[in-house]
Amino acid sequence: MTYVEPLARQVRQDGTMPSADAVQERRLRDLAGLFADRDAEARLLAHDPLVYRVFEAAALPKEDGHLLFSTTVIESGRVGDEYFMTKGHFHARADRAELYYGLGGRGMLLLQTPEGRYEALDMVAGTAAYVPPYWGHRTVNTGEEPFVFLAAYPADAGYDYGTIARDGFAALVVASPDGPRLIANPAYRPTPSDDAR
Amino acid sequence: MTYVEPLARQVRQDGTMPSADAVQERRLRDLAGLFADRDAEARLLAHDPLVYRVFEAAALPKEDGHLLFSTTVIESGRVGDEYFMTKGHFHARADRAELYYGLGGRGMLLLQTPEGRYEALDMVAGTAAYVPPYWGHRTVNTGEEPFVFLAAYPADAGYDYGTIARDGFAALVVASPDGPRLIANPAYRPTPSDDAR
Repeated sequence: MTYVEPLARQVRQDGTMPSADAVQERRLRDLAGLFADRDAEARLLAHDPLVYRVFEAAALPKEDGHLLFSTTVIESGRVGDEYFMTKGHFHARADRAELYYGLGGRGMLLLQTPEGRYEALDMVAGTAAYVPPYWGHRTVNTGEEPFVFLAAYPADAGYDYGTIARDGFAALVVASPDGPRLIANPAYRPTPSDDAR
Repeated sequence: MTYVEPLARQVRQDGTMPSADAVQERRLRDLAGLFADRDAEARLLAHDPLVYRVFEAAALPKEDGHLLFSTTVIESGRVGDEYFMTKGHFHARADRAELYYGLGGRGMLLLQTPEGRYEALDMVAGTAAYVPPYWGHRTVNTGEEPFVFLAAYPADAGYDYGTIARDGFAALVVASPDGPRLIANPAYRPTPSDDAR
């Protein structure tokens, strides 16, 4: 029998991972249409800021039993009243969970069921936040510093970005005089069919 | 469809988790027979020191697709030349991986295949260390402070402690004038049959 070899990756204080296998960089143009305020988005697109980076640790087999892990660094910023955030996704194998662990900064983990029920969890350094099977998830930087976290998930989970790109997310996190506020997304339109995802 | 609810657990700087679902406390008597120096073990058993604690975050379903997560705090100490360590285990479902993430202190992750080939990974705060499927694993505190890490693994992995309790671990980490040293365990006796585990 051949075994996959053990491996280690060092994560820096700022959440970057110098020996990552791959780095995904998402600028505002990569998130076009995800923010509610299209005018603010259009103005910001002129200089197309970096929104987040994902440092994918290792090219492990995308097979049942393995785990993939990565760090994510979300910059501090806003598009209109909305904070910088990740695209958000369901898992292609929808029954796969995910674990987040806060490393720095301050943010929120947004979650929604396929039917559009939503929850939010606050995250700071040291917060272990659990995405149970079937919940779509997105992370939002609600602070003044980069929001940084570790993620681990089954290697066969895969990604479904299409559902959220098409329907939107059931909740938004917006800036208010009292700080970040979670509100229902008036533009959210869940696709009724079970197999639309 | 009913969904498992999202949840968060805050981990303190010292690795403890006040809202853990369960805490496993392992004193020296719980590890009797695992250290090479039986005389040193016998002397220390008179005050039976705390060796490590595991803070199990949440009572999630032990089903495929879910992840379990915990923190482990290994105290600094030795039994003869050997550093304080965990019992070590294979997974009952041997094809399940595990991810460790160092939160504080300094240690080593020991790994071995069922045939007794071994590897070791150094861990400090910020080290993400991957236990691939089929590798037995044990963690060792080689430092002067508690060695603390987060662990995440598939919820259906289960534990096989019996193999290591019976055969020993293929490698030991011992103190030397030059610091921690990894050596082959002369007392290690792998059980030859494939189905002995």
